[in-house]
Amino acid sequence: MNQKTLEWIGDENGHVEMIDQTRLPGEYLIIKIETPTDMWHAIKQLKVRGAPAIGVAAAYGICLGLKQVEDNTPLNDALKSIAETKDYLATSRPTAVNLFWALNRMHRICQDNFPDTKSLKNRLLAEANLIRQQDADMCRSIGKHGADIIQKNDNILTHCNAGGLATAEYGTALALMFSAHEQGKSFHVYVDETRPLLQGARLTAWELQQAGIKATLICDNMAGHLMSLGKVDRIITGADRIAANGDAANKIGTYSLAVLAKAHNIPFYIAAPSSTFDLSIPSGKEIPIEIRDPKEITSPWDNTIAPEGISAYNPAFDVTPHEYIRAIITETGIIQSPNQASVKNHLATSAT
Amino acid sequence: MNQKTLEWIGDENGHVEMIDQTRLPGEYLIIKIETPTDMWHAIKQLKVRGAPAIGVAAAYGICLGLKQVEDNTPLNDALKSIAETKDYLATSRPTAVNLFWALNRMHRICQDNFPDTKSLKNRLLAEANLIRQQDADMCRSIGKHGADIIQKNDNILTHCNAGGLATAEYGTALALMFSAHEQGKSFHVYVDETRPLLQGARLTAWELQQAGIKATLICDNMAGHLMSLGKVDRIITGADRIAANGDAANKIGTYSLAVLAKAHNIPFYIAAPSSTFDLSIPSGKEIPIEIRDPKEITSPWDNTIAPEGISAYNPAFDVTPHEYIRAIITETGIIQSPNQASVKNHLATSAT
Repeated sequence: MNQKTLEWIGDENGHVEMIDQTRLPGEYLIIKIETPTDMWHAIKQLKVRGAPAIGVAAAYGICLGLKQVEDNTPLNDALKSIAETKDYLATSRPTAVNLFWALNRMHRICQDNFPDTKSLKNRLLAEANLIRQQDADMCRSIGKHGADIIQKNDNILTHCNAGGLATAEYGTALALMFSAHEQGKSFHVYVDETRPLLQGARLTAWELQQAGIKATLICDNMAGHLMSLGKVDRIITGADRIAANGDAANKIGTYSLAVLAKAHNIPFYIAAPSSTFDLSIPSGKEIPIEIRDPKEITSPWDNTIAPEGISAYNPAFDVTPHEYIRAIITETGIIQSPNQASVKNHLATSAT
Repeated sequence: MNQKTLEWIGDENGHVEMIDQTRLPGEYLIIKIETPTDMWHAIKQLKVRGAPAIGVAAAYGICLGLKQVEDNTPLNDALKSIAETKDYLATSRPTAVNLFWALNRMHRICQDNFPDTKSLKNRLLAEANLIRQQDADMCRSIGKHGADIIQKNDNILTHCNAGGLATAEYGTALALMFSAHEQGKSFHVYVDETRPLLQGARLTAWELQQAGIKATLICDNMAGHLMSLGKVDRIITGADRIAANGDAANKIGTYSLAVLAKAHNIPFYIAAPSSTFDLSIPSGKEIPIEIRDPKEITSPWDNTIAPEGISAYNPAFDVTPHEYIRAIITETGIIQSPNQASVKNHLATSAT
């Protein structure tokens, strides 16, 4: 994938350009994001989505807020403005921990000593660009570490989009597939369309097609049937937040796949960078689940598909307990049979 | 529900009127069906759908074929024409056994002695009307037998549409709910939208709303999450064909629900009339599964939601092994823990 999900254009008074993911695959539209408000709406409306990409977007959001701060502003006022922008951006989406991770990382930079506001602005843009670059590098490493999981002639099932579009580039779950494909391995991917917002149909199918990887689109409710027919060899998804014990929040429907995988003795994998782990949360039960507008179910793209006045319930994520996860693939290696001890050990080892 | 899913209007030279279910819930449109070709397309395009309703439609399709046969036609020529119409209608959809059951029942009538073609035509229309009336009666009986399964304050989950629209009237799975509601019981229903054709969102949500039963629409991939939260007390669906051992084919996605139900210790029920059993088929493995147009997934209602050229796989049904089914509710009573012996015993007892 050579598209850039989002990038900063220009100096510290520049702006962000991003692919508007709500328009894909019909239209490949690059939009300009000029202010934190633009960024908040882009995140909320899923113009940019996917836990790692949301992290990069939030970091750049801080830089966009600083554009309004003159270079000769007293440092304390600049820091106050940053804190406000940080709090504001944090309200855009609650589940992906990478959002908070990136905002906190930007905030920590502010605690260094700076001679003036201009140098602070420069340093924060450099940090946001570093977050973006490190995310791209992490995705390549995830791909490298996980590619061996994919066997020749595998039928892989994936859910939602954990591809280049969900990250700075290259993806997490799809990174394994891109990497295996680059090694010349032949395999085939079943893509869950992923209702209500169809990230699988619109984004994952498009990314796999662009990469020349064989893919077949299915409705989410067909996955179990395919498993019963022996047509699924393994399942690989991304994650939006992983608790200290390895429980993983990911796009709604992932939990069902994990339960079905266990019933059919099919290994279920998660691919995610370290920034997706939230060690402050002991288990998946404590991960906040975003509830979105019922209209995403009842009136997709302004087509009313349900009777007027009907209630709808629209949780955006669910939690897969760690017992269902064969392994988590990170940029520093693979956590087999994740649990509190193995997660802690892995992250401690890889941080050194 | 007071709508008639389909009915015959006039004498043996009359026609069928049916609700065009592809237009619901936006439009309540009654269409005229004048010929077997009209009926074949109505079944194929799901203007009429649901296993029991397809049976009634097929029986009327035979009568529509006889309209073109003059009353003074030699009896043998009339019988030949009926056989052709029967073979033609049998090609419309492969999975619902009620289609073949109704065609065979009409064909058996032809083996009686008739003085002339006119009396044969009269007798076949009477038989088709009887199939319709018996279906309506069976649905009421299913409701009566199954209503006690529903407990006060239950949260019930259903999939696809097994309501009045899937039968002559009153439904199968929904018959339990209509009956419990008429008894004054308060409960709530989660309705799977049922991709790709959204029979849950369009038809079941509409029927429950019309009946004044509390309902909440969800995407199919949310059901497992709700189960994990303890928000589902039981699952009730219809069936399109039940094998001799109790394995049941139903709308794609039903099998996944049954596996998830078992993992969460939630009882899973099927409601279906005796005409849905196919004792000629020993197990679900032998039930033919209809594969439908991939465009139903990639281009619902002419909105393209996937990249051009992507493959899609669109099985319309899956099979739930009998071990996953707590009970099957029929018009003559309840088959607990269905298996070859209990199915055989129940059908033998109720036939006498």
